[in-house]
Amino acid sequence: MILVNGKPEDRIAITDRGLQYGDGLFETIAYRNGIAEFLQQHLERLLLGCEKLGINFTHVDRLKHEVTQICDDLADNDAVIKIIITRGSGGRGYFANADMVATRIVSSHPLPNYPEEHATNGVAVRFCQHRLSDNVQLAGIKHLNRLDQVLARNEWTDPAISEGLMSNADGNIVEGTMSNLFIVLGNKLITPLLTHAGIAGIIRARLIAIAQDYGLEFEQRNVSRSDITNAQELFVCNSVIGIWPVRSIETRSYPVGPITQLLQILLSKSPK
Amino acid sequence: MILVNGKPEDRIAITDRGLQYGDGLFETIAYRNGIAEFLQQHLERLLLGCEKLGINFTHVDRLKHEVTQICDDLADNDAVIKIIITRGSGGRGYFANADMVATRIVSSHPLPNYPEEHATNGVAVRFCQHRLSDNVQLAGIKHLNRLDQVLARNEWTDPAISEGLMSNADGNIVEGTMSNLFIVLGNKLITPLLTHAGIAGIIRARLIAIAQDYGLEFEQRNVSRSDITNAQELFVCNSVIGIWPVRSIETRSYPVGPITQLLQILLSKSPK
Repeated sequence: MILVNGKPEDRIAITDRGLQYGDGLFETIAYRNGIAEFLQQHLERLLLGCEKLGINFTHVDRLKHEVTQICDDLADNDAVIKIIITRGSGGRGYFANADMVATRIVSSHPLPNYPEEHATNGVAVRFCQHRLSDNVQLAGIKHLNRLDQVLARNEWTDPAISEGLMSNADGNIVEGTMSNLFIVLGNKLITPLLTHAGIAGIIRARLIAIAQDYGLEFEQRNVSRSDITNAQELFVCNSVIGIWPVRSIETRSYPVGPITQLLQILLSKSPK
Repeated sequence: MILVNGKPEDRIAITDRGLQYGDGLFETIAYRNGIAEFLQQHLERLLLGCEKLGINFTHVDRLKHEVTQICDDLADNDAVIKIIITRGSGGRGYFANADMVATRIVSSHPLPNYPEEHATNGVAVRFCQHRLSDNVQLAGIKHLNRLDQVLARNEWTDPAISEGLMSNADGNIVEGTMSNLFIVLGNKLITPLLTHAGIAGIIRARLIAIAQDYGLEFEQRNVSRSDITNAQELFVCNSVIGIWPVRSIETRSYPVGPITQLLQILLSKSPK
């Protein structure tokens, strides 16, 4: 099911700035056991993104109603709910009239059937050649300009590789193509800074809060390739997969370590 | 008139990767006096972009036919023809199946009615705050990830300002929001290097060829803010506007200089 501005629809105007310029934002929400998980956090991030991009989006109540409609339609079927907000439709050229009305697209998709072992035994991961674009003003925002992720994800077809890690121009590792990254190094939990590139993930934020509540030693800082090599534990996370321990990157192997397992338990108990 | 994969249509599938990820390319072509100007060069750039992004676009003949249909429909009316090629439609997630078929969108739009004086007396220009994203692998390509240009262009509403100049992370001036930039400094024609950001424009390439044929001293190099201040002449160019001399940037004024005027004449005589 897809709703565009509240109406069942599977197409959008060619003139929409989402298509013309990638001028918009998105959210990917796990719908499990009848719950759109972390919906409030997703909506808050979406609104923050609209504010940062100057997108005039005022119909949050309508959007919430549309998400509810999609959830009602799904009933007991687990799914992924995707929200796209674009700046709206109209005109040729980068300038956008201030009275432009944002477009809302809410859609449901099958939940990917990842093997259960991904969460228990971990996944194999690679380093991507394609680098993240550096831009201090866009860093953190889940916007629709996703060519970097597309190019990085299409570097491999081997189904045994579950994720690829991406660096930015200075060679620091920032995130996965579809996930955020955490490492455990010297008993400290570390996640890359997102000051120049990367998406500020909902699960990433949740895990930072959990780690701090629990009193784990934690730091956000640049993560180099050698930090990855030296890490005791490594995991990737997002709203759909939760936490996947990394069991190998190319020739280096990692155990599914105690901090990763602890965070999996704490995340599963976290109110959604 | 809009043709999507050859059929008159004003909408596109929500699942198209052009909307989902900005996963595609575009061309903006001036149609004047019954001619789609520099069409061959636009098509060559489009194909080069497809190759760089790994977009499986094989229907060039169909695309040419669709451009001809649009031109026939326009008849004697000057216009802008826009081509969008996306990787195609389908799936959620960054991975794209290799058998995905690229989407072709060809549309016509009114030619903007810029005052004739823009070309003769020059335009007022500003410096934009928003910076271009740095990415060596994407630099030069006219792809659909255009949030940088959108944010920069929407920094001003004053109709007296015709263009904004954008820098990249290191502070060098790379281009305008919708144009390439040339300066004349110490009798040498200079245009910024596009190794880290920017779009390799068709008129830019044409002017480089013209300058070299004519024996003008020419260089592609980084252009700093002080180069802009010290320049004797300055102009911006693209396929729709041709060459606009810059008559002022904020408080600094420039004359419409002899090299700019010479290039305007040579460009107007250049076969299109």
